Amino acid sequence: MPSDKLSRAELDHILNTDAPFSVHYGFVVEDFGSGSATIRLPYDARHTRPGGTISGPAMFALADFGMYIAVMGAIGPVALAVTTNMTIDFLRKPADRDLIADVSLIKQGKRLMVGRVEIHADGEDDLCAHVTGTYSVPPQ
Amino acid sequence: MPSDKLSRAELDHILNTDAPFSVHYGFVVEDFGSGSATIRLPYDARHTRPGGTISGPAMFALADFGMYIAVMGAIGPVALAVTTNMTIDFLRKPADRDLIADVSLIKQGKRLMVGRVEIHADGEDDLCAHVTGTYSVPPQ
Amino acid sequence: MPSDKLSRAELDHILNTDAPFSVHYGFVVEDFGSGSATIRLPYDARHTRPGGTISGPAMFALADFGMYIAVMGAIGPVALAVTTNMTIDFLRKPADRDLIADVSLIKQGKRLMVGRVEIHADGEDDLCAHVTGTYSVPPQ
Amino acid sequence: MPSDKLSRAELDHILNTDAPFSVHYGFVVEDFGSGSATIRLPYDARHTRPGGTISGPAMFALADFGMYIAVMGAIGPVALAVTTNMTIDFLRKPADRDLIADVSLIKQGKRLMVGRVEIHADGEDDLCAHVTGTYSVPPQ
Repeated sequence: MPSDKLSRAELDHILNTDAPFSVHYGFVVEDFGSGSATIRLPYDARHTRPGGTISGPAMFALADFGMYIAVMGAIGPVALAVTTNMTIDFLRKPADRDLIADVSLIKQGKRLMVGRVEIHADGEDDLCAHVTGTYSVPPQ
Repeated sequence: MPSDKLSRAELDHILNTDAPFSVHYGFVVEDFGSGSATIRLPYDARHTRPGGTISGPAMFALADFGMYIAVMGAIGPVALAVTTNMTIDFLRKPADRDLIADVSLIKQGKRLMVGRVEIHADGEDDLCAHVTGTYSVPPQ
Repeated sequence: MPSDKLSRAELDHILNTDAPFSVHYGFVVEDFGSGSATIRLPYDARHTRPGGTISGPAMFALADFGMYIAVMGAIGPVALAVTTNMTIDFLRKPADRDLIADVSLIKQGKRLMVGRVEIHADGEDDLCAHVTGTYSVPPQ
Repeated sequence: MPSDKLSRAELDHILNTDAPFSVHYGFVVEDFGSGSATIRLPYDARHTRPGGTISGPAMFALADFGMYIAVMGAIGPVALAVTTNMTIDFLRKPADRDLIADVSLIKQGKRLMVGRVEIHADGEDDLCAHVTGTYSVPPQ
């Protein structure tokens, strides 16, 4: 379901002005909707751990960013939305490729949003990480 | 309890050769022992989110790194130890200061290590984040 | 995918002899396969919290039991498999009906199994709880 | 710190009228304060898993109940407080004894309370389970 609360132009403006960390990682918002998002983390040796695979913290950052986009897709640009908790399971080493995160909100409450993120390496079927997280949103 | 499995010189060698990500964050291992560690993340605008406070992913990276040091303190340099899952609760915005992570292992098993990490801003008492995580260690 | 490691007769034998707690809750194994399971918790006032809805601990027990069945479906009857951790998100109050748990393993490793459980009230689409958990399995 | 929001008599009244599940488990509130609680789960064969040790779901129920008491100790009897998520790490098999849960709130916000629960068998030092959880509290 496409978002009626957030346009692509609004999203790009936010990412360019308020989110310098997305530049560090090079996140690409491939798609987003009302409570969903697909984000790409381009493969970059800066984000690897010993052995050459993308590090856990980079996957966490990808999931957190994806949740942020999905929440904005659901309720519009809300600067005050904050992550309250996240749980990440690392399932297997990803291939040395871009990572793709598929985000969907499984609860859209007035105060709390809960999302699930599935991360896989581009071109692979098996998940390399699975995340659930909660966002607190301010009264509107 | 000081570590009898890992010397400061061994630790420094590992960090200099195998852990380029620790350079990105500038982590300082202030102390470590057999199943414990204290790590400092120096305040740096590169790791902030809108509003100027240290970002969630930077706190996650700090906790993950601290767990890695505490596990090595317990069993020695084990390149194959990997994080299997982590849960992070974000409790309050930290002050614009260095962050300190206090790590202690609450289970030291043959196959699984479980740790707890408390993160606070330097000079503050209240926790800004709380983490639990599991490391899988290879048979020795 | 049906299980080639566990027959219905073997499962029934285990549940009748080793799992008295499944009797307390009245769990019904509606279906199981190699790394999957569908479990029903019949509505019973004994398992409710103030307000009449099924309690959180009853949902946790349902998820834990479902993981146990899915793991046995994947590797056969392994008495020593143990839960190492679980994270449960409570999403909305269920209707006063039976609860259904759909379990699928998202990692089947030699030592660790990771599963995901989606719980909904019979006849409703929305999830009332979402669970991820890890089982440790002994060397085989 | 003792609670100035909840008296022992108020607590007993709530437990006798609204919490039939606490009767099933036989929970004993040994102590409580403003954001803390100590709860005992008497050893009972009904709550064991194969092998005779207290089951995971019983430990989860103990932690959830303890969080509920600690939250009421902090803000008074609030029927609408609900658990939003919990993460439990099972660390080792407990001895065949009563279990003790020590609960402390690590965040007391206007909308969210976060608690930590440490569970050990009576007479043992090592933790058998570690829990973190979040309660959502209604506007007051």
